[in-house]
Amino acid sequence: MKSNRMEAFSDGVLAIIITIMVLEFKLPEGHDWKSLVYLFPKVLSYIFSFVYVGIYWNNHHHLLHMVRTMNGRLMWLNLLLLFWLSLVPFTTAWMGESHFAPTPMALYGIILTLASMSYWLLQRSIINQHPRDSHFHTIGRSWKAKLSPILYLLTVLTAYISPWVSGFFIVLVAIIWFLPDRRIEEFLREK
Amino acid sequence: MKSNRMEAFSDGVLAIIITIMVLEFKLPEGHDWKSLVYLFPKVLSYIFSFVYVGIYWNNHHHLLHMVRTMNGRLMWLNLLLLFWLSLVPFTTAWMGESHFAPTPMALYGIILTLASMSYWLLQRSIINQHPRDSHFHTIGRSWKAKLSPILYLLTVLTAYISPWVSGFFIVLVAIIWFLPDRRIEEFLREK
Amino acid sequence: MKSNRMEAFSDGVLAIIITIMVLEFKLPEGHDWKSLVYLFPKVLSYIFSFVYVGIYWNNHHHLLHMVRTMNGRLMWLNLLLLFWLSLVPFTTAWMGESHFAPTPMALYGIILTLASMSYWLLQRSIINQHPRDSHFHTIGRSWKAKLSPILYLLTVLTAYISPWVSGFFIVLVAIIWFLPDRRIEEFLREK
Amino acid sequence: MKSNRMEAFSDGVLAIIITIMVLEFKLPEGHDWKSLVYLFPKVLSYIFSFVYVGIYWNNHHHLLHMVRTMNGRLMWLNLLLLFWLSLVPFTTAWMGESHFAPTPMALYGIILTLASMSYWLLQRSIINQHPRDSHFHTIGRSWKAKLSPILYLLTVLTAYISPWVSGFFIVLVAIIWFLPDRRIEEFLREK
Repeated sequence: MKSNRMEAFSDGVLAIIITIMVLEFKLPEGHDWKSLVYLFPKVLSYIFSFVYVGIYWNNHHHLLHMVRTMNGRLMWLNLLLLFWLSLVPFTTAWMGESHFAPTPMALYGIILTLASMSYWLLQRSIINQHPRDSHFHTIGRSWKAKLSPILYLLTVLTAYISPWVSGFFIVLVAIIWFLPDRRIEEFLREK
Repeated sequence: MKSNRMEAFSDGVLAIIITIMVLEFKLPEGHDWKSLVYLFPKVLSYIFSFVYVGIYWNNHHHLLHMVRTMNGRLMWLNLLLLFWLSLVPFTTAWMGESHFAPTPMALYGIILTLASMSYWLLQRSIINQHPRDSHFHTIGRSWKAKLSPILYLLTVLTAYISPWVSGFFIVLVAIIWFLPDRRIEEFLREK
Repeated sequence: MKSNRMEAFSDGVLAIIITIMVLEFKLPEGHDWKSLVYLFPKVLSYIFSFVYVGIYWNNHHHLLHMVRTMNGRLMWLNLLLLFWLSLVPFTTAWMGESHFAPTPMALYGIILTLASMSYWLLQRSIINQHPRDSHFHTIGRSWKAKLSPILYLLTVLTAYISPWVSGFFIVLVAIIWFLPDRRIEEFLREK
Repeated sequence: MKSNRMEAFSDGVLAIIITIMVLEFKLPEGHDWKSLVYLFPKVLSYIFSFVYVGIYWNNHHHLLHMVRTMNGRLMWLNLLLLFWLSLVPFTTAWMGESHFAPTPMALYGIILTLASMSYWLLQRSIINQHPRDSHFHTIGRSWKAKLSPILYLLTVLTAYISPWVSGFFIVLVAIIWFLPDRRIEEFLREK
């Protein structure tokens, strides 16, 4: 009774989330390049979300390799993470449609904060399946996991000051999480 | 010839069901918090359905581990279950859009009753693959399976009295099914 | 290099086809039972298509267990089958929306005929991977495979006489294919 | 830590891309054959894209069998490929809706060029995991990989001269890639 099916289900949900965002691109009125201009903010916010969902998929992929035994708790924490991520297409579309207005950007930041908190809860539950002295426990103390909520909060707060500052923090968190945690990769290689 | 592919197909359908419900969230007119108010009943009914589909996926996951041999009967009972669940996004959207009006809530309860009856038929077929004296047969006699249809019926009937009472029974059934059946988990651990 | 990934991809496409048909159910204007009446032909044509896609998934499941070696030919024949099936949601919606008008019903029959012909081509290619004297070759000579195109043709032709006659043939083909071919199941059990 | 989950995720995304394109087929006003005429350019561009996504899925399938160790780089290159392919439904719909106007055709060519460049980067990363003298390295030097970008560029440029010439190059690239690389297939058979 391993985590395979939870992986398959999560992959399915994430694949749909990443793809239905494109359904928000309404066809332009004209047939020239100029008529595509209105799409620019929508495509930009799509790129943000594509990268974020990609990062979650990538880290999720690494995290689930550490699961020792599946239980109801892990399944529900995983569903909680998928719930917040399932709201990403809506907030992405709103952010793009509003040309990065303060409230849509703040909502985007809030949804990502809640997703990252669910991820952190899932991670902690999986880490606790391992003995206290295993080096999985160092992951829980990683600076990434501690810094992210603060940066997300800054995304939300600065949304009302300037979309550029808020967008900067969105990009910054993406860069930090871009690569999966080296320590997990090393551990898996050692096994 | 195991149940893997039926699991994969069911996971795909459930993942799509859970995700396309979000497509019902039309973008708001304005760009402030106030313009999100209309979304509240839609999000609430989405949460209900997300939890229900999650519960079905979770229990389905446990149930399919007990399949000994696949056959046409199991496939069709599984498709029957998926058919009723595929109607959940429509009834969820109607319930949210009508602000929990009696008829949409009653329809929601009816669809869930039919889904639970299909689940029960599928469960019985799988249990009957095991010898009569195995302790799988105790599951068929579980109080959950007996209580659920009655509670669902109450959901349908009370929809015309008060949405709060009807909603209470919807939440109650969810809580009852929240955790997968301990006995199956124990059996799988013993194996 | 087995057929696993072709199965996974086909399952994904079939799962999406079966689920997006529900997106055609537009929300009713009112909030009472009467306002659901307009949905009746749509739900009826959805049931037809759900059963048909279910039958294809079921038989496809059995057929792919006979694949000995994957090659480009099988992949393209499989994609051809998926192409025709991908048009089922459109024709289903048109048939329902038109209240089973002759031309939509004829188109529905044509798409199903083309899908069944692709299935037959795929089946023949897989059978030819087995030695001539194996009893797989008897499947190619099955009366089902020979009768189906004739019945589909009758579905198309009678669409202009009466929707009831045409619908009768649609239901008849469904019943014929309802159960997977016993001989394949028996062979797999013997293995 | 093999490439299975990346395959599963990619299959999911490709299956959704190929299927949601059909959602662009709006229902016709009338219920006769004549009312389907407007669909012709949409169906034609759908066929193009179905074949292209099919080709990518097919080659992707072969390519991922050569992966020796998964790493972050491969995951991100794979996501880059999926990103460009996720824009195919939008450009397909625009091309069909505009009756193959120059700019939509040029955009279609550009998106396919970017997808093919991402595929080439992914292929190169996977090839470099193998020793220099293995015959995987001959694949990197294949004439297909060298010819494709030139033909795609011609698709973009000739879009403003004639849709027929541009369409000819789209079809030509499809034919070239129709069959998976024989050399990879042979190698896998030898293994």
